[in-house]
Amino acid sequence: MAAHTGEYPRTVTTVRLLVTCRDRPGIVAAVSGFFFARAANIVDAEQHSTGDRFFLRVEATLAAGDQPERVRDDFVRVAGELEMDWRLARPDPDKRVAILVSRYDHCLLDLLWRFEQGELEGRPSLVVSNHPDLADRVQTFGVPFKQIPVTPETKREAERELLQALEGADLVVLARYMQILSGSFLDALGVPAINIHHSFLPAFAGASPYQQALERGVKVIGATSHYVTAELDDGPIVEQDVAHVTHRESVDDLLRIGRDIERVVLARAVKWHLEDRVLVDGRRTVVFR
Amino acid sequence: MAAHTGEYPRTVTTVRLLVTCRDRPGIVAAVSGFFFARAANIVDAEQHSTGDRFFLRVEATLAAGDQPERVRDDFVRVAGELEMDWRLARPDPDKRVAILVSRYDHCLLDLLWRFEQGELEGRPSLVVSNHPDLADRVQTFGVPFKQIPVTPETKREAERELLQALEGADLVVLARYMQILSGSFLDALGVPAINIHHSFLPAFAGASPYQQALERGVKVIGATSHYVTAELDDGPIVEQDVAHVTHRESVDDLLRIGRDIERVVLARAVKWHLEDRVLVDGRRTVVFR
Amino acid sequence: MAAHTGEYPRTVTTVRLLVTCRDRPGIVAAVSGFFFARAANIVDAEQHSTGDRFFLRVEATLAAGDQPERVRDDFVRVAGELEMDWRLARPDPDKRVAILVSRYDHCLLDLLWRFEQGELEGRPSLVVSNHPDLADRVQTFGVPFKQIPVTPETKREAERELLQALEGADLVVLARYMQILSGSFLDALGVPAINIHHSFLPAFAGASPYQQALERGVKVIGATSHYVTAELDDGPIVEQDVAHVTHRESVDDLLRIGRDIERVVLARAVKWHLEDRVLVDGRRTVVFR
Amino acid sequence: MAAHTGEYPRTVTTVRLLVTCRDRPGIVAAVSGFFFARAANIVDAEQHSTGDRFFLRVEATLAAGDQPERVRDDFVRVAGELEMDWRLARPDPDKRVAILVSRYDHCLLDLLWRFEQGELEGRPSLVVSNHPDLADRVQTFGVPFKQIPVTPETKREAERELLQALEGADLVVLARYMQILSGSFLDALGVPAINIHHSFLPAFAGASPYQQALERGVKVIGATSHYVTAELDDGPIVEQDVAHVTHRESVDDLLRIGRDIERVVLARAVKWHLEDRVLVDGRRTVVFR
Repeated sequence: MAAHTGEYPRTVTTVRLLVTCRDRPGIVAAVSGFFFARAANIVDAEQHSTGDRFFLRVEATLAAGDQPERVRDDFVRVAGELEMDWRLARPDPDKRVAILVSRYDHCLLDLLWRFEQGELEGRPSLVVSNHPDLADRVQTFGVPFKQIPVTPETKREAERELLQALEGADLVVLARYMQILSGSFLDALGVPAINIHHSFLPAFAGASPYQQALERGVKVIGATSHYVTAELDDGPIVEQDVAHVTHRESVDDLLRIGRDIERVVLARAVKWHLEDRVLVDGRRTVVFR
Repeated sequence: MAAHTGEYPRTVTTVRLLVTCRDRPGIVAAVSGFFFARAANIVDAEQHSTGDRFFLRVEATLAAGDQPERVRDDFVRVAGELEMDWRLARPDPDKRVAILVSRYDHCLLDLLWRFEQGELEGRPSLVVSNHPDLADRVQTFGVPFKQIPVTPETKREAERELLQALEGADLVVLARYMQILSGSFLDALGVPAINIHHSFLPAFAGASPYQQALERGVKVIGATSHYVTAELDDGPIVEQDVAHVTHRESVDDLLRIGRDIERVVLARAVKWHLEDRVLVDGRRTVVFR
Repeated sequence: MAAHTGEYPRTVTTVRLLVTCRDRPGIVAAVSGFFFARAANIVDAEQHSTGDRFFLRVEATLAAGDQPERVRDDFVRVAGELEMDWRLARPDPDKRVAILVSRYDHCLLDLLWRFEQGELEGRPSLVVSNHPDLADRVQTFGVPFKQIPVTPETKREAERELLQALEGADLVVLARYMQILSGSFLDALGVPAINIHHSFLPAFAGASPYQQALERGVKVIGATSHYVTAELDDGPIVEQDVAHVTHRESVDDLLRIGRDIERVVLARAVKWHLEDRVLVDGRRTVVFR
Repeated sequence: MAAHTGEYPRTVTTVRLLVTCRDRPGIVAAVSGFFFARAANIVDAEQHSTGDRFFLRVEATLAAGDQPERVRDDFVRVAGELEMDWRLARPDPDKRVAILVSRYDHCLLDLLWRFEQGELEGRPSLVVSNHPDLADRVQTFGVPFKQIPVTPETKREAERELLQALEGADLVVLARYMQILSGSFLDALGVPAINIHHSFLPAFAGASPYQQALERGVKVIGATSHYVTAELDDGPIVEQDVAHVTHRESVDDLLRIGRDIERVVLARAVKWHLEDRVLVDGRRTVVFR
């Protein structure tokens, strides 16, 4: 996405306003008038209406001396008049992203590498795995690694330990974490979790989707990144992509081809989430990219 | 696919041998030796093994004076020794393709146009619809049109009439035919039927897949062409393709985007079937293209 | 794209405002304030900044009793203050689209069919070809057909006749028209012309791109729709798409596969242009879709 | 690609026969008869004819006690009769792959990771860069790293040093190596080199293709892997892929999106080359996959 480059000073403060409300006339005018009145400049704005609900994302740079906190305080009045659900976010290089993983490393390494490249906003604050295998590789990225084993017997205790470890995270990414998180865990977590599922949902939910795909004889396979909800593989979808396959591919081939799709699909979802581009609309998402 | 162009006379006779059998050494040698011994030239050959089952498609041009019938008679011995399921097919411009349709015309017109272009082997012998709407347009292609209305009460009678109309067809294509064909109809039909379903199966089988897709909030939609079996939307898949969509698309948009996918996915499946490139392997297909 | 459906009366008047200007603070606020002040409702808005130049498309429904002409008159003041290039357009089912074609019918038929389906705004007012072949097929769509032959000797005269025939058209579409239009013709035409070129430009400009592609051994082929300028195959690109190919494809195969890409790439460009979604930015386009 | 799994012992010896010759009857029969006569089993076979030239790849497992060397010796007679260019290759986990790189690490790390996963046949024997930056990261993969700086003044000397370092390599991969290799270097190298170019060639050859792409306003960007020849960015193409882009993407965005394409396009080309699936046909390639 193009950013303003020319005329603004480097110390510019950027804010992102995200709004959901009942659709009705005057929303855009009210919001843009609000920013104009305080000499802020709208550098990006996208809106979406379902006819019933209205979604808005505005990225604005503040006038010299203005503060995000004051914007937040002042916007309360506008939001109240138009009965908005809203939040004011900021680009934040210190956003803390915790990554859960089991033994497959492709999504994990790809995310760590993208953070290193500066592709993703924020930083990987912690990697947790139920296996010890990936500890060394994670440490080459300078990111803390913690093993929390899970067995059917210790699941409750493991979730308690996990919850403690994730304290302070702004986002949790399940980068092929092969454990199902309980509803009570998710409630206690309190921040969003994004999962990568290795099929084009709703096809092939649950275990062994590539095996399922082979047995059904599909000609495309895919991957889906979605917000985690208590119902397995059923949360709002953020991104999906697919690859064409033929009868020639074995399950191992599907796993290999799938890895390439999974890592980019997960990376896109994480990127958009961190840039505050995703609004949840019931079972669906609005992605302003 | 490239064809030999240089050195063969125009009156060359081409045959296509399709073989399925238990995998074991010597199959390729036996088949290619068979053709070599009668001075035929193998112009294309593809094979596939699942480890257990072996699939082979050989396209060969016969020596001057040789006849497909004699090839067929002579191959019986080879096939017997290696316990093959097999058939010998020929490119045939008179292959009769019957098309069933309801009111949506995009797949129908696309198929008629492709036959006219010479993209598809054979010829459209008949279009049958349960509605009268498309009669005029079909007639501009010089193809017979027959209306056979279907109501819940007359379904049995309508299927009988349909069966009669399809007598002599080599292939039946369901180009968005919105009636479910009974198992007994399919048994009596005796030739393959290819359907286009407007989702990436197994997701969104049954009615209104685009509405289902919108409600689930998927980021790709697709279409699937498959052989028709008694179980709805469950037959062996021949081809699938997808398009990316966003939250912006309404159901009408999905219908529009879907039309573009449906017509090419169906056309590919029909093309490959008519060129004897598709072998059924249980619930799956082997497509030699 | 989702449209408002619920609460607006059917006789609603929609306008589309398209703005290009130097980027600076306050543009969005000024425009949205303008619409808000006259009780119009912004139903879609997209903006783009290159840092230097700013592009805006606003779709708004007017208050009961308001008129596009009055909006236009009143906007002059806003536009003057912010030094905007701008125009106010309206959805118009009577927009006149003239289609030029030679012998290949795939893009032509696809466009005529899409107009019939209601996919494209406006109507096909005339088809002109330098060959007589497609006259009958065009007439089945109820669209006038005119043959204007072109030879090297008669080119100047033919362009004069063509110019007369195109009088009153709002858009000219070159749907595989195999004649190069002169710069003076384009100047005299006075309305945009959209061409489909059968390669992913800038690769393989000029004649026989599929032959060129085969000789270069590329693994993707493509098509490009672009505004026509005096320099051949060099105008601003509106849309491109590609398909994967292998060594197996002959030139005939490339032509066949290419037809499927060409027709959708051209259709998208025509659709977006007719919906006033395309802004030209020098050699590039901004497409708000 | 599916492999035989069931009935063959683990110590099976696999050979790959690659043949190019003038097309004429009997080639397939001669080759398959050759393997059948020595009780070898053909597990995969693909052929291609341009009408003039014939290309064949056969993968076969040898009978117990048979040796690739004896196959090679015995095939000389068959090859002589049919005037074949041919070679007999073997899957070889010790194939030595040298990787050249400058500062961008995405293709390099991706290749090292794929070797580690077992996706690519052979092993990375050495990484050479003209910069020191990537030394540490390469060492975490246990692969030797060597820096050979290049300046305009030292280019000849640097190429001499590089040649020495690459001694014994079976394949050289240019994974975003930003130096042009001289024709005499390539001659002396004596093994194939595969390069990744960050555009869909032949568009945007040479320097800064993403900048060129942005200026031309294309709607797709791509990457091309090709064999290196003395003429820059002009060697036979092995694989290409693309991604869709819009006016919103800055050059930095194109670089980021391009990285994802480059690494998979290069990885596919390297994989196919190492599995002896690529035959060069003048300026083109035949890729049997």
